Amino acid sequence: MKLVSFATGKQKSYGLHTAHGIVDVGRHLRERFPDIKTLLSNGGLAEAAKFEKNAPDYREQDLVFLPTIEQPNKIFCVGMNYAEKRQEFGETNNAPTLFIRFPDSQTGHACPVLKPRHTDEFDYEGELAVIIGKAGLGIPAAQAYEHVAGYSCYMDGSVRDWQHSWFTAGKNWRQTGAFGPWLVTTDEIPDPHTLFIRTFLNGQMVQDDNTANMVHRIPELIEYISTFSALSPGDVIITGSPGGVGKKRTPPLFLKEGDLIEVEIERIGRLRNVILRDAAVA
Amino acid sequence: MKLVSFATGKQKSYGLHTAHGIVDVGRHLRERFPDIKTLLSNGGLAEAAKFEKNAPDYREQDLVFLPTIEQPNKIFCVGMNYAEKRQEFGETNNAPTLFIRFPDSQTGHACPVLKPRHTDEFDYEGELAVIIGKAGLGIPAAQAYEHVAGYSCYMDGSVRDWQHSWFTAGKNWRQTGAFGPWLVTTDEIPDPHTLFIRTFLNGQMVQDDNTANMVHRIPELIEYISTFSALSPGDVIITGSPGGVGKKRTPPLFLKEGDLIEVEIERIGRLRNVILRDAAVA
Repeated sequence: MKLVSFATGKQKSYGLHTAHGIVDVGRHLRERFPDIKTLLSNGGLAEAAKFEKNAPDYREQDLVFLPTIEQPNKIFCVGMNYAEKRQEFGETNNAPTLFIRFPDSQTGHACPVLKPRHTDEFDYEGELAVIIGKAGLGIPAAQAYEHVAGYSCYMDGSVRDWQHSWFTAGKNWRQTGAFGPWLVTTDEIPDPHTLFIRTFLNGQMVQDDNTANMVHRIPELIEYISTFSALSPGDVIITGSPGGVGKKRTPPLFLKEGDLIEVEIERIGRLRNVILRDAAVA
Repeated sequence: MKLVSFATGKQKSYGLHTAHGIVDVGRHLRERFPDIKTLLSNGGLAEAAKFEKNAPDYREQDLVFLPTIEQPNKIFCVGMNYAEKRQEFGETNNAPTLFIRFPDSQTGHACPVLKPRHTDEFDYEGELAVIIGKAGLGIPAAQAYEHVAGYSCYMDGSVRDWQHSWFTAGKNWRQTGAFGPWLVTTDEIPDPHTLFIRTFLNGQMVQDDNTANMVHRIPELIEYISTFSALSPGDVIITGSPGGVGKKRTPPLFLKEGDLIEVEIERIGRLRNVILRDAAVA
């Protein structure tokens, strides 16, 4: 199944992305499961699956995509997790490097990504997002996949000139983390370490790798993180970006207003966002 | 006013710490303001003040203290923010170094702090916590204090052997961040940069400094953080620890089961916690 969070007018909902359009599942299940996070928490996936054959309610262009999970309790981001990226940044630390995004830094598929007016170094990072489906603390790697609900694309927009030695300030500007278009459940992706992952800037491929090349793989990341912090349904682990980011190119290649940035992952789909200028803070 | 979050039996509440005991304000205001965070969001401080002269409902020993704000939306932690600490760690980065704690890493005054079984380097850090009272994005330093509701003590328990080059894994173990005993409103602390701050391990003073010696002061921190991330009532900024932490002593001085750790800040009070072993993960 492909689960989509969306809004139509003022109403938020969620549903299934099918070949013919979007089936509005929230319309039927909202009272028991107000959003995808609670759907994952309470065994709602089987309930949602009953609507797979329904006639679609919307075309993609009729709705606004929300971040696949709009309010995760925890968003862990893994830095320096592809060999090429580590080489570009001279990374030598062997433990997974983790930073955190707040939910209000996210945006949905086909929504604007906002380039902060405070930066001239707004960079793209295409990543595979893992969405937790089952709570756990101290999860052994061998059982990690039992705790995964599915996968999505993530464009971890990065304000390089605010990253300093810690990443918090570089990774938490509003509407800089695009998450979507949808959650693909694990039954459709039996092995998440066999997927091509590509980023396109204005149609030109700027990152091209395969999730086989992650340094710390998903089971290891789940074991590591859940050793110190409990995971719960709807939590997100963004697994790091391949090489080829703008900061390490000669000359550097940063995002500017009007650019189209796309992250495509095999078996998931293509996350598309246009860059706009953030005029929020005068 | 001194605002306390607490539980009695299964009921959570909040109230005022007075010379004679704790006045249960939640009992009267819970329907409108279920916790201190919502009290701060919705102009509830003036409502709470009406109960200041009430007879106390509890003695301190009759209740369980909760973290002063149990579920902040955002907890920003500032690293390397006292001159002596920076010298000890060889810090040269000039921007505020920020990491994040999740709310489930917190515990209250007089509750156990849990030493993870995975570490032999569990360290203390006594810090001043700033609690936001008014929402803002792009707050100028000159207006920053208008956005502060009050102050509290924080014991930022740190798992040094999991800090690696990022702090996330070192700072998010459950029940390692003690927050309390209470929130002291700004009218009682007109200048938060004149306060002695001291940490005691088993009665012996191990950190002794003054908030005058912070490198990045509160208005600057609020301006910096709110440039990239919106602040809202109940958000917490933990402003960093003075020198004298266990990691940089010769020989090192780490926390062990049964230790009593106390953080005392002038005009606020003394946060006390006993260290227990975390047996959660087998």
